[in-house]
Amino acid sequence: MFAPKSGLGFVVLAAFLSLLLGIFIGQHSSSKLSESGHLRVKRCDSQGGNDEKSQLQKLVEDKWESEQHLNKEILDLINTTNLRNDLKELSSRPKLAGTERDNELARMIQQRFIESGFDSSELVPYDVLLSYPNQSDPNLITIHDGSDNVVFTSKFKEEVLHKDDGDPEFVHSYAAYSPPGDIKTNPGTGPIYVNYARVEDFDKLEELGIDVTGHLVIARFGKIYRGNKVTIAQERNATGIILFSDPHDVAALGTSPADVYPNSFWVPGSGMQRGTTLDGLGDPLTPGWPSTKDAYRLDEKDVVLPKIPCQPIGYDDAREILKKLGGPAPPAGWKGDIKEVGYNLGPQLLDEFGDHYVRLQSHNSMHITRSYNVIGTIKGEVEPDRYVLFGNHRDAWGYGAVDPSSGTAELLEVARVFGELKKKGWRPRRTMVFCSWGAEEFSALGSTEWVEDHVNKLQDRAVVYMGSDACARGPNLQVAASPLMWDAIKKITKLIPGVSDGETVYEEWAADYAFQNKTEPVIETLSSSTDHASFIFYCGIPSMDRYFAFDTNKYDVHLYPFFHTGYDTFYMVDKIVDPDYRITQGCGRMTALLLKYFSDSAVIPYSLNRMAETIEEDLVKLTSDGIGDRLVQIYDKFPVLEEAVTNLTQAINKFVKRVEQTKDTMGPMLLRAVNDQMMKLEQTFILPSGLPGRPLERHAIFAPSLYDAYGTSAFPGISDLLFRINTSKDKVRKEQRKETLRRHISDVTIVLQRAARYLEDFQFI
Amino acid sequence: MFAPKSGLGFVVLAAFLSLLLGIFIGQHSSSKLSESGHLRVKRCDSQGGNDEKSQLQKLVEDKWESEQHLNKEILDLINTTNLRNDLKELSSRPKLAGTERDNELARMIQQRFIESGFDSSELVPYDVLLSYPNQSDPNLITIHDGSDNVVFTSKFKEEVLHKDDGDPEFVHSYAAYSPPGDIKTNPGTGPIYVNYARVEDFDKLEELGIDVTGHLVIARFGKIYRGNKVTIAQERNATGIILFSDPHDVAALGTSPADVYPNSFWVPGSGMQRGTTLDGLGDPLTPGWPSTKDAYRLDEKDVVLPKIPCQPIGYDDAREILKKLGGPAPPAGWKGDIKEVGYNLGPQLLDEFGDHYVRLQSHNSMHITRSYNVIGTIKGEVEPDRYVLFGNHRDAWGYGAVDPSSGTAELLEVARVFGELKKKGWRPRRTMVFCSWGAEEFSALGSTEWVEDHVNKLQDRAVVYMGSDACARGPNLQVAASPLMWDAIKKITKLIPGVSDGETVYEEWAADYAFQNKTEPVIETLSSSTDHASFIFYCGIPSMDRYFAFDTNKYDVHLYPFFHTGYDTFYMVDKIVDPDYRITQGCGRMTALLLKYFSDSAVIPYSLNRMAETIEEDLVKLTSDGIGDRLVQIYDKFPVLEEAVTNLTQAINKFVKRVEQTKDTMGPMLLRAVNDQMMKLEQTFILPSGLPGRPLERHAIFAPSLYDAYGTSAFPGISDLLFRINTSKDKVRKEQRKETLRRHISDVTIVLQRAARYLEDFQFI
Repeated sequence: MFAPKSGLGFVVLAAFLSLLLGIFIGQHSSSKLSESGHLRVKRCDSQGGNDEKSQLQKLVEDKWESEQHLNKEILDLINTTNLRNDLKELSSRPKLAGTERDNELARMIQQRFIESGFDSSELVPYDVLLSYPNQSDPNLITIHDGSDNVVFTSKFKEEVLHKDDGDPEFVHSYAAYSPPGDIKTNPGTGPIYVNYARVEDFDKLEELGIDVTGHLVIARFGKIYRGNKVTIAQERNATGIILFSDPHDVAALGTSPADVYPNSFWVPGSGMQRGTTLDGLGDPLTPGWPSTKDAYRLDEKDVVLPKIPCQPIGYDDAREILKKLGGPAPPAGWKGDIKEVGYNLGPQLLDEFGDHYVRLQSHNSMHITRSYNVIGTIKGEVEPDRYVLFGNHRDAWGYGAVDPSSGTAELLEVARVFGELKKKGWRPRRTMVFCSWGAEEFSALGSTEWVEDHVNKLQDRAVVYMGSDACARGPNLQVAASPLMWDAIKKITKLIPGVSDGETVYEEWAADYAFQNKTEPVIETLSSSTDHASFIFYCGIPSMDRYFAFDTNKYDVHLYPFFHTGYDTFYMVDKIVDPDYRITQGCGRMTALLLKYFSDSAVIPYSLNRMAETIEEDLVKLTSDGIGDRLVQIYDKFPVLEEAVTNLTQAINKFVKRVEQTKDTMGPMLLRAVNDQMMKLEQTFILPSGLPGRPLERHAIFAPSLYDAYGTSAFPGISDLLFRINTSKDKVRKEQRKETLRRHISDVTIVLQRAARYLEDFQFI
Repeated sequence: MFAPKSGLGFVVLAAFLSLLLGIFIGQHSSSKLSESGHLRVKRCDSQGGNDEKSQLQKLVEDKWESEQHLNKEILDLINTTNLRNDLKELSSRPKLAGTERDNELARMIQQRFIESGFDSSELVPYDVLLSYPNQSDPNLITIHDGSDNVVFTSKFKEEVLHKDDGDPEFVHSYAAYSPPGDIKTNPGTGPIYVNYARVEDFDKLEELGIDVTGHLVIARFGKIYRGNKVTIAQERNATGIILFSDPHDVAALGTSPADVYPNSFWVPGSGMQRGTTLDGLGDPLTPGWPSTKDAYRLDEKDVVLPKIPCQPIGYDDAREILKKLGGPAPPAGWKGDIKEVGYNLGPQLLDEFGDHYVRLQSHNSMHITRSYNVIGTIKGEVEPDRYVLFGNHRDAWGYGAVDPSSGTAELLEVARVFGELKKKGWRPRRTMVFCSWGAEEFSALGSTEWVEDHVNKLQDRAVVYMGSDACARGPNLQVAASPLMWDAIKKITKLIPGVSDGETVYEEWAADYAFQNKTEPVIETLSSSTDHASFIFYCGIPSMDRYFAFDTNKYDVHLYPFFHTGYDTFYMVDKIVDPDYRITQGCGRMTALLLKYFSDSAVIPYSLNRMAETIEEDLVKLTSDGIGDRLVQIYDKFPVLEEAVTNLTQAINKFVKRVEQTKDTMGPMLLRAVNDQMMKLEQTFILPSGLPGRPLERHAIFAPSLYDAYGTSAFPGISDLLFRINTSKDKVRKEQRKETLRRHISDVTIVLQRAARYLEDFQFI
């Protein structure tokens, strides 16, 4: 099936030799090409043998095009029974990073890659700093009366509401990397309620004359990354922070048992959102280099870690605290949906609670612990040194059925399917790399350490990185990706059968955006929410983060309700979220064809025009509302940056046109050279020493927003610095920041100019 | 001549098709290759036409091998008359960087590239900070009597000793970037004599109880880079520094007119060594980014520039100062060869000079000035996106006949010769890039800014950088290069006719080292003396610095006598140094064949084994004399670094063996992939944030010594830190440096491990 047979005939031979002419002429002078000089000769023969020609053909063959018949086979092979069985096994027990169960699963995945017939399958260990709660002495929020009697104690894990959810090793509620501590409020006071603990929330409090200095604060989850909440509270001199899940976000239809788990995907009152609070990516002891066994490590005291204790609780427990709070009434929009609670700001307790006080006790501790990545490969036939990567993490805060196991089941199934093809003699053009990351939940440790360890290979050889994390959250496709991948993603979704009521995933996806009056689905640029972060922000490798989401058109909810709680269970997926496994199957199908598309296309299917358009649009956004004038005022050479954007667009247009005109006639060397130009384009945006103050986030054009790692920002250094100039009260500091901004605008201009030149014809060095 | 013709025949066709089989099978399974499956088919044909096959053949053709007949033609084409004519024009007038004459020469070179038939020839401007003396108010050293009468004034330019050397625009003696200043010694005192102004010289003085704090110092040129002399004097709190050329170094046979210029290459008493005193490479206002027109620039006050005035003088003037010095007698070895001078340490003047004092007046100033690089290319036929670079600078302190114009004449002649071939239909396999750098004398500004501007293209595409600066200093070949180039260099020198009495350059070269009891010529690793520095130390691109030297076996002399003086004239070359232009011709011949060898070989002729051996040997050197034990004492994981070196050697041996076994059967894609592995190997040694405290010198294995930019050091970060730990008197600082050393040893270990893995088979990512 994969080794074309053919007859004999000199006419075909002549065509074949024309092909060779094409190979060479395409190298440097396509204009000389004869009309018949096409490269794509499907079948040909001669005395010399037919294998030989099909072999040569492979060097320039667009296997994506010539193997269209395989797409259906691949789609059909992604099997829902396999997905269900794998998910059941993967989510049968808790698998916190660094635990024996997590290691067991790593070995299982390694074995599965081997069984799939992969060319390599390796466990790659790193020794990383992990943070754990004390399982025998749980973290607690307590309320005490004036005689120090405990009148309330918070829960430290979820109520068991389904028979399979009571694993004795289930991890207690905690915020990873939050330090141990014992914080008491003064008698008669509780915490101050700070809404979402965003910069604007604290600013609002300041406006109202409320200073959180020296106070415990309480905030609801949502809007921004929890780690940023901790950092911001800390910058405002709070002593500790309690984070709670509000029914508004996790039980939007009501909190009665009938409306929540195990009867729906909404969360009962004891659901607690665990999670990391680290600011930044990777092992904090080895910033910028891999945590190999013998690597040097910073001393914990020299490392930026959260300094104030943080503890997550459910809304049942939050109610007990909030309902005692007096003080000013909350500003508009600050009220959540906990019944009988006024969301007063505190810190004064209502009169009836007299000299009560609130206490936060955290007993977390940190340890250097071994965590494994599993890396499996199917070696490319034509370009073994070009890598198309797909990754998913393995660890979870609990059972992790959706996060990450829906993606892990997908990984195993996609691996199996390409393994099947390989067993039949097929190979991809480029090497496929499958990654099961360890310790993602602790701030993408496994992927970041691996990227730091393999940075040269990756920057030199990686075509794309595609990530699937908590893939099957609901039926609504959501994609964030480098603009270079946007067209490919859209194209592939048109080939994937719908996961709910549409004919194709694209149709369903487009319908969601039609609902928002958009003519086509919107793909966002990337935030740093998961393992793609080091690939794109440290290395500049085009990346994608894709999942099927909970319907945020229907509900004004952050992420999905049971995110990081004890209710992310097999039962949840199997009975509620994806009972027929069509969503998980959709994930696998989409990944499989994207992998094949990027592995097998002769010309790598990057959408350079999208990159140009996105930068142009983002520049318009950046400079709107008078900000452009403000930038010119600060730095008179800002218009040179705008000019550089225009030049880059022109260079991209010219390049794309040239590739379009010559792609069918390129010889193998020119094909490789042109692919390299595109593959390395995004790397020209990498600033060697990083964004201002962010040495490990080096992408000058797109990067996470500084005050919300879950958010994304174009020209991130410029907008962050502007924000900090505007909010700075110290005149000297303001001036310093303006100077930093001037230099950064110049740096961004230079990388844009460099990008344009990178696409020039080769002799213009 | 360059388009092979061939007959008709199916036997040949069959061989040709076997060739195709080889192309493909070589991609991933050489073991399946049939006995006849060789790629190197010299001639073949078929019905389909013969051009086609010769075209395909080109993809894997080793043009170096198949075009051996061209070598003699190329050698013969390098013409001494052309070299003389070009040199005469190039050195007819002074051409300080940024002056109109320098710009005129840039345009002339651009034009010559165009006339040679190059595919591109561009002027690439950078606006860099240059430093100039005041031509109407020269820098002076004066001696005054007690009544402030001037009793001695130093010369500010050389005596005109030959009719062509009196250009009115000749630049006054100065040390570039040395600040303006007016330093007077106290009555009855002069400067302190500090020998070569090395760290050990100041230490010796300290030992003798002599503190230079607050004193003017005087030192002789030699042993280390003048910029380091200034920095070291400044660190010891000297107020200014006078540098003089000692007859020991510049007039070894005597100072009588018969023994010096214009009668020999030795220097008369007014010969003054101009030069930069910048510490580091490139425009100090734009460290790490290019000095484009609109680039942000640091404020001069925020930049590390020499802080104390420095002025170079000749030995005639030095005599006037030194002979007045009293104070302690000099330590052993500190005496130079100025007659009637005791080389007393000072600062006291001899009694007879009573209340005399010495004054240094410098009127230098700095300006941002446009300087041009000229970049010309001959586009590669098969791999246009692979660059083999050759560069020479254009600017000089004066006429610059040897430095740099002997190399510039070479550049023009080599360009002309390849242009001739191109006009006849020939092209190299890879793109040849010819560079004429601006402002090299000011610390490699032109090349450094260009490298910073093109860092992505260069790191992704450059095969080697070869530099020729002051090429024809004498008949004795001296080479410093990345070990990856050593074998190629040795091989090529065996093909070049000798420049003096040997049959080949190799023979002459080997004879020099036989004189030192070495079995073969020694190639050193690179220092940062000229334009290759950013290529190798910032980018990790294998580089070479090569010149024909003054015979240092005969004379214990640093560099060559007339270095940077007004006596580096056309007359000097034409009558004394290279009257028959055989040396300059040898330069051109060697460059031409090296360019062709690296451009045209199918497998790039890197010597990976030399890299392994050199690192192994340098590790032995580093750890000898108990230093290994000391390193283990400081960091118990130092043995892991030693292990990493061993592993790298094994990985290299394995890789080299694999390439050796498969090189004749590799298809074009695998050939490219394997070449890429080798081409990027040295880049795996680059530390993104540089050596400790040296952000722009990023090569972890070989780099300039910190206290002598002209010197080179293996494991430079380790040896520098050890030195600073040993010499540190502050206990806290010592501890900090030990910590920095631990981390750096870990970093070096990681890059060594990464290098070994980089050579693995492709699927092992």
